[in-house]
Amino acid sequence: MSLEVKQQSLRLGRFERGVHLVTGNVLRGLTIASGCRAGLLHVQLLHTSCSLALNENASPDVRMDLEAFLDQLVPDDTGYFSHTAEGRDDMPAHVKSVVTGSSLILPLSNGHPVLGTWQGIYLCEHRDAGGERRLHATVIGDFS
Amino acid sequence: MSLEVKQQSLRLGRFERGVHLVTGNVLRGLTIASGCRAGLLHVQLLHTSCSLALNENASPDVRMDLEAFLDQLVPDDTGYFSHTAEGRDDMPAHVKSVVTGSSLILPLSNGHPVLGTWQGIYLCEHRDAGGERRLHATVIGDFS
Amino acid sequence: MSLEVKQQSLRLGRFERGVHLVTGNVLRGLTIASGCRAGLLHVQLLHTSCSLALNENASPDVRMDLEAFLDQLVPDDTGYFSHTAEGRDDMPAHVKSVVTGSSLILPLSNGHPVLGTWQGIYLCEHRDAGGERRLHATVIGDFS
Repeated sequence: MSLEVKQQSLRLGRFERGVHLVTGNVLRGLTIASGCRAGLLHVQLLHTSCSLALNENASPDVRMDLEAFLDQLVPDDTGYFSHTAEGRDDMPAHVKSVVTGSSLILPLSNGHPVLGTWQGIYLCEHRDAGGERRLHATVIGDFS
Repeated sequence: MSLEVKQQSLRLGRFERGVHLVTGNVLRGLTIASGCRAGLLHVQLLHTSCSLALNENASPDVRMDLEAFLDQLVPDDTGYFSHTAEGRDDMPAHVKSVVTGSSLILPLSNGHPVLGTWQGIYLCEHRDAGGERRLHATVIGDFS
Repeated sequence: MSLEVKQQSLRLGRFERGVHLVTGNVLRGLTIASGCRAGLLHVQLLHTSCSLALNENASPDVRMDLEAFLDQLVPDDTGYFSHTAEGRDDMPAHVKSVVTGSSLILPLSNGHPVLGTWQGIYLCEHRDAGGERRLHATVIGDFS
């Protein structure tokens, strides 16, 4: 067995506010998992107002309902927020990012993430105009 | 030092809806941590309507109150959800899974997870009848 | 490439109830990342009533608003909690810890965590008098 660490940065692109299924976007851009027999893949957003989650990869309804839940949990017009200078969607975006989390770690087997049948990677864009989102990816595993 | 990666799948069994302390269930089924002097253990649920958490291992009250909180946070009769075809507990389960998270990563030392005195592993079953739950486990560490 | 695993415990100290930026505290105490060309850093709180998050490192307003959100999400006087013997802030602290999470995993490059420009490490102290908080840190990476 021969363990290696590989890292890369990965541009995800721009997304509308909402919850997006990005499994394909992540895997297409990820070159460092290739040849990894077994290991772990860590992906981290380098931003504080969007987040990553693992959830249902089939029905778009689930992603719409998750967005609706998050908007109801932390409304744009939350009256007690004082950090409002960057827009009414900014502080809610920070809170949603903390609640959901900004990184994922997945098992890798034969170059592919191990996911349940119904699991996919969500990018949750919490800003109205978040701009381009970037990930930093790390693979530690057996490349023998 | 000789690093290795080991992976296994692990059946947790069926659980009633609620928050369950499963530290023992996980450790009894986990064979790949044996002999690991130092490393990391990653466990991931292969499902989208249950979750894992690390919290208080002593009082059953804490687990009951956590379940009550989650049920109040995302009620089964949430009116604005559109993903309702799989039951009134389904979409709330997806949301709770995102809020709580579906994987854990723990330090390993001398074959055992490093946990605080009061820390234990929770399986949060968010469905009324979730069926059998499975984990995929990965250990990366020093097996010399 | 020569992979190694290193572990250490780390005392963070005592913090007032609230959300604190502790990037510097963590990095000053962390000796095991030194010399790591590329890898992963895992830090885990050994407690069940405080939590770690990654978010905005500039404006103190963000941390105050996050605390206000968490206090509104799980008020100290939540009427339906039964785990009340350890104080009215205890069960809310457990819930907040589960929602936010008690560990972080970060990429390491040339001995330093890879963070976005605006990302910092938050310690969220959910107790009125939480006492000294401790982390267990693990680095797996290339030390050649």
